[in-house]
Amino acid sequence: MAKGSFEASAPGKVILLGEHFVVFGKPALVMALDRRARVRVKLLELQADNIKVHSLNIPNASPAELQPIKEAAIKAMEFLGLRKGLEITVNSDIPISAGLGSSAAVSVATIAAVGGLFGVRFTKEDLCRLALEAERLVHKNPSGIDPTIATYGGILLFEKGKPPEPVKLDLDFQLIIGNTGIARSTGEMVAKVGLLQLYYPEIFESLLEGAHRLVLEALEALRASDLEGLGRLFNVNHGLLSAIGVSDISLERLVYAARAAGAFGAKLTGGGGGGCMIALAEAGRLDQVVQAIRKAGGEAFIAAPSERGVMLEA
Amino acid sequence: MAKGSFEASAPGKVILLGEHFVVFGKPALVMALDRRARVRVKLLELQADNIKVHSLNIPNASPAELQPIKEAAIKAMEFLGLRKGLEITVNSDIPISAGLGSSAAVSVATIAAVGGLFGVRFTKEDLCRLALEAERLVHKNPSGIDPTIATYGGILLFEKGKPPEPVKLDLDFQLIIGNTGIARSTGEMVAKVGLLQLYYPEIFESLLEGAHRLVLEALEALRASDLEGLGRLFNVNHGLLSAIGVSDISLERLVYAARAAGAFGAKLTGGGGGGCMIALAEAGRLDQVVQAIRKAGGEAFIAAPSERGVMLEA
Repeated sequence: MAKGSFEASAPGKVILLGEHFVVFGKPALVMALDRRARVRVKLLELQADNIKVHSLNIPNASPAELQPIKEAAIKAMEFLGLRKGLEITVNSDIPISAGLGSSAAVSVATIAAVGGLFGVRFTKEDLCRLALEAERLVHKNPSGIDPTIATYGGILLFEKGKPPEPVKLDLDFQLIIGNTGIARSTGEMVAKVGLLQLYYPEIFESLLEGAHRLVLEALEALRASDLEGLGRLFNVNHGLLSAIGVSDISLERLVYAARAAGAFGAKLTGGGGGGCMIALAEAGRLDQVVQAIRKAGGEAFIAAPSERGVMLEA
Repeated sequence: MAKGSFEASAPGKVILLGEHFVVFGKPALVMALDRRARVRVKLLELQADNIKVHSLNIPNASPAELQPIKEAAIKAMEFLGLRKGLEITVNSDIPISAGLGSSAAVSVATIAAVGGLFGVRFTKEDLCRLALEAERLVHKNPSGIDPTIATYGGILLFEKGKPPEPVKLDLDFQLIIGNTGIARSTGEMVAKVGLLQLYYPEIFESLLEGAHRLVLEALEALRASDLEGLGRLFNVNHGLLSAIGVSDISLERLVYAARAAGAFGAKLTGGGGGGCMIALAEAGRLDQVVQAIRKAGGEAFIAAPSERGVMLEA
């Protein structure tokens, strides 16, 4: 039987290249961050059906904000043929509403923790699928990239409907993440891009082809430990994202500030229309880029890839 | 024989879509502006070989700035088998060093005026070719688009090595031109784009294909008097120009300010890296967009297409 409580964690993410185009079947490169969501679930023996959720990071979270976490727990219990009362406590150092995969990391960790609570270790495939189903109840048209990277960790070549392909690295590197502080709606951005494709299918096809080739070149650059080349490809990818209408002036300010501070390259990451950007720079210049982004009005921090996907921390 | 002096004029231009990609053999849409360079040439009977140049707009112009005008006059006289002393006076309302074709307009007008002075009316083909040869002595790798539009006027579908194709319009429209005030070097930008093509020929090929399709769509939109559609295509084209590295933060500021003020679309125009941007908006909103661009730090004015190419004003 279940012991009293169980904890699991999962990482946030940044999309290195290929966001949005991934919705149209193109590959993307996604990286797990060294920032994690930790979720503790506790059995409420006497309160069947009652699921209480607390977030230590958003003390005043609205019920709507906590709903996805509930949905994830319910999905996990449905899969196990159970329905119990739970108390769920989230403690995360992934910035929220920033396109850094906070929501999927919480979902994946919740499902893993619920499994652990009842003595079941989900396969990664099941974890990922359950988290995606829970996300679908809340977000529109998610590509599945967020739960996948939260589950597997590392750097993945991701393509819809295919098993994710881990990218082996010889390279220890860090990147800079800049947050515009403007909450974005990935759903709205995805819808906007969909309209563009409807209006101009042939132009869009060329952009898709360009994005595809970009990701393949970036994969080569990563495997060759060529951060400078990867940065150049960031710049090109950022332009393609501007072309499909998902950049904005808040992102451009941070992107150009990073480049002017000597970054190899910079681009928006994730849904766009606000949210975050990423930049690559040589190790000695990371702080300079962070300062430049702050001066341009963003929050900024240095992050590294993390090999660790979902983890049980019983 | 020649009378004492002769005047000719030619228009400035904006590239509507396709700049940079035109260097690689793709079509571009270019529009003559209702701003002109007027050039008066006067025979200096007693001073063979002496060419004096004055610009009424740049009273302190350096000899290097005036050299292209001299070269144009020399080209015209060479073609006529002459070498005479001339006094050349330029009076232009085209902003200079802004990518608005000031230099080519002056060259074309100079050549036409020199012809007129000696009783010769150059064909448009000859005018255009002589101006291009004169430009080649000064600028690197000019596509020929500037002397062509300065000669023919109107709106042209331009492709390197083909006769320019006039675009017939049912439509009276105006657009907004915003100037970052940052002097740009088209040559540097062209070289930067050339490097990108060398590094990533396949990605670049997709971008070229996208730019080609954009111009064809834009031609349809123009012919259908669909300014809103043309604006949307401006936005996509701007992203492609960002992808090839020729935008900068000064341009992004003006572009996003115009869009936020309700423009149908906005893009950089010409070489990039500073210089100008253009925006389309409904007639009632033009002033609002102009104000927004000024507030964002640019100079701005409203311009219209001009059917008039080079004109003799004897």
